Amino acid sequence: MAINLKKTTKKDIAGIKELRLGVASAGIKDDATDLLVISLPDNSNIAGLFTQNQFCAAPVIVSKDHLAQEDNIRALVINSGCANAGMGQQGMDDAKTVCKSLAKHLDINERQVLPFSTGLIMSKLPVEKIIKAIPNAINDLNENNWFEAAESIMTTDTIPKAYSKIINFKDRDVTITGICKGSGMIYPNMATMLAFIGVDINIPDDLMKELIFEVCEKSFNCISVDGDTSTNDSFILMSIPADKGFMLEKNSDEYQKIKAAVFDAASFLAQSIIRDGEGVTKFLTISVTKSLSHNEAKMIGMAIANSPLVKTAFFASDANLGRVLSAIGNSQVNDLDLNKIDIYINEILFAKAGAISDSFDEIKISSEMKKDEISLHIMLGRGTEEATIWTTDLSHKYIEINSEYRT
Amino acid sequence: MAINLKKTTKKDIAGIKELRLGVASAGIKDDATDLLVISLPDNSNIAGLFTQNQFCAAPVIVSKDHLAQEDNIRALVINSGCANAGMGQQGMDDAKTVCKSLAKHLDINERQVLPFSTGLIMSKLPVEKIIKAIPNAINDLNENNWFEAAESIMTTDTIPKAYSKIINFKDRDVTITGICKGSGMIYPNMATMLAFIGVDINIPDDLMKELIFEVCEKSFNCISVDGDTSTNDSFILMSIPADKGFMLEKNSDEYQKIKAAVFDAASFLAQSIIRDGEGVTKFLTISVTKSLSHNEAKMIGMAIANSPLVKTAFFASDANLGRVLSAIGNSQVNDLDLNKIDIYINEILFAKAGAISDSFDEIKISSEMKKDEISLHIMLGRGTEEATIWTTDLSHKYIEINSEYRT
Repeated sequence: MAINLKKTTKKDIAGIKELRLGVASAGIKDDATDLLVISLPDNSNIAGLFTQNQFCAAPVIVSKDHLAQEDNIRALVINSGCANAGMGQQGMDDAKTVCKSLAKHLDINERQVLPFSTGLIMSKLPVEKIIKAIPNAINDLNENNWFEAAESIMTTDTIPKAYSKIINFKDRDVTITGICKGSGMIYPNMATMLAFIGVDINIPDDLMKELIFEVCEKSFNCISVDGDTSTNDSFILMSIPADKGFMLEKNSDEYQKIKAAVFDAASFLAQSIIRDGEGVTKFLTISVTKSLSHNEAKMIGMAIANSPLVKTAFFASDANLGRVLSAIGNSQVNDLDLNKIDIYINEILFAKAGAISDSFDEIKISSEMKKDEISLHIMLGRGTEEATIWTTDLSHKYIEINSEYRT
Repeated sequence: MAINLKKTTKKDIAGIKELRLGVASAGIKDDATDLLVISLPDNSNIAGLFTQNQFCAAPVIVSKDHLAQEDNIRALVINSGCANAGMGQQGMDDAKTVCKSLAKHLDINERQVLPFSTGLIMSKLPVEKIIKAIPNAINDLNENNWFEAAESIMTTDTIPKAYSKIINFKDRDVTITGICKGSGMIYPNMATMLAFIGVDINIPDDLMKELIFEVCEKSFNCISVDGDTSTNDSFILMSIPADKGFMLEKNSDEYQKIKAAVFDAASFLAQSIIRDGEGVTKFLTISVTKSLSHNEAKMIGMAIANSPLVKTAFFASDANLGRVLSAIGNSQVNDLDLNKIDIYINEILFAKAGAISDSFDEIKISSEMKKDEISLHIMLGRGTEEATIWTTDLSHKYIEINSEYRT
């Protein structure tokens, strides 16, 4: 059961010139494509952000290493069905073998390849199967394969997740297109998230790093299902200049416009991960405003989003909202003035000055909580910054999905 | 369903001279005692530790305030059924009114009274009912009422939780007796924990603070059900000197002996909270050893204990133990050498040097996970310190209990 998950079709997705994608079936997943190769021209710029989990998977270590060593990344290779995580030196060797194989076919250096994996952890990567399927993926390379690419990286996603937007810019069109995978409710293993976004404008290296960080901080870093961070999470931004003469500049209006468009793509994709959770019955938007900093607002929003007590109350449409106060009190923000905190659910005030509001009406609030899209608005009353977190309730289905796997 | 929860009976619990307890029914809970008064002689020493939740309940604020202002605490007043949390100024006034009423009856100052509440949050304290029942509790005051006291503070606990131990010390007996309440799986609201332990030996003020901190850090602070910290958690240690001429000294053998006995009481009571969780099907002991510090070991143990993915895997007896590695990687300990980490489940090695062990046998491990007492041993390979965390699995019942309340 997904909550208001917008189905994208192949015709909604615009290609990006010279960014080609090819898929194949390596036989890791049954009866589905599970291998994706992305080929980039040699004037691209690539930036990546990766999981903070110290037990990150081998492909994450290799991708970070290649990004640090090589400024001319030419290809990405992604498999679904196996995460190649928790496998020690074997995992590292396997990820590198896959890079080497693809590099040989494309006549590039193996360091110019970034590997990604998603699926079962503590399971050996089926390298031979992947190597055998690589030529098929290469034969399939095409600028208009984004939708097929989104399909090939799915694990328990119920639909492929893709987004495209064309903005008019300096008298020409700029295309922003992206795909991601991630199932809110974590099956078979982790809420592993992979996201790849391309944009056909020339963005210099340092600005790429700033752009991906700023966008990720308010999109993929603002979703939470259960507070667990996967071993494989990766977000890659690719700039493929259509007009090599033009270079995006820091602090310019043009940069702001591009950033807004990339953010639209990233927030659409991030929300789609939450909306597609198998156990999800409610989509919650938690806005924390009037805070001293974005970071502080985010910490409070995440403390609410990750509280099992808050999440079960929303599942049950139970106006037991003292749990929200308690979750705020448990955040790592230690100097709150509780007497300044007001909280709204949808448009209804339920806590005023840090305590139950005089107008608190349990029946009315419970009825708001029965909706499948609910907003919670916490006003901290001490600044001008804010953050928005997207999350879900915690349902019986979550336990089912996460406990009945393999048993 | 409780896991190996030892039933204590009234005859197992020894009284402490001059520490008198009285219970009454104020009518907050149906058909049960819900008010407890504890009366102390004027040469007692009291120390307390309270919830770190910033949205702490009014009685917590008042108790901390009275403990700071007054070095001669003479009485405690505890009600169950209502937590008096999230009620703003009204809550503060109500907690003080209860103290004032008890103080008047006992002819002491209201600052010499510590108030405690547990139960529903964001609900007004029924002050009139409590005031009316106070004389009945006072009439009931008796040194041998510990078991009845344990009953009166229950919320969803399935049995009263009490512990008593007599140790021989300097040619005489020292009694350590304590009670607590707390239900692992949080109903009606919070995993609120209240614990009161008395010891009939003279412990000076500064040593009381050290003792309660050291004991709590490895007992009540080492249990976790779901990572949520209640608004009302309180742990009170009371020293009532039987022999006024003797004073316990810092760093002495006698101090170590008393500390070990108080720790036995606290760890029995702390474990009983976990064992009594209504949704619990497994009791998990997570030992983290060979760490640089106790704190580091505790952070890693808690990261595992609070991971919904780990907890659901244990519920299902699913040997999906990459989730344990991933939880370790998500802890806030940032400089781990993953290649030095070995992990055992019961006596079976499943991860060696940070990766799946060569001898990994899914069927064997899954069969260990079917037991109702499971130990997880993480060896960090970088020091000599350790910590032990007690926790539970995450079951369907947890969702049921926490979502079906009031609906």
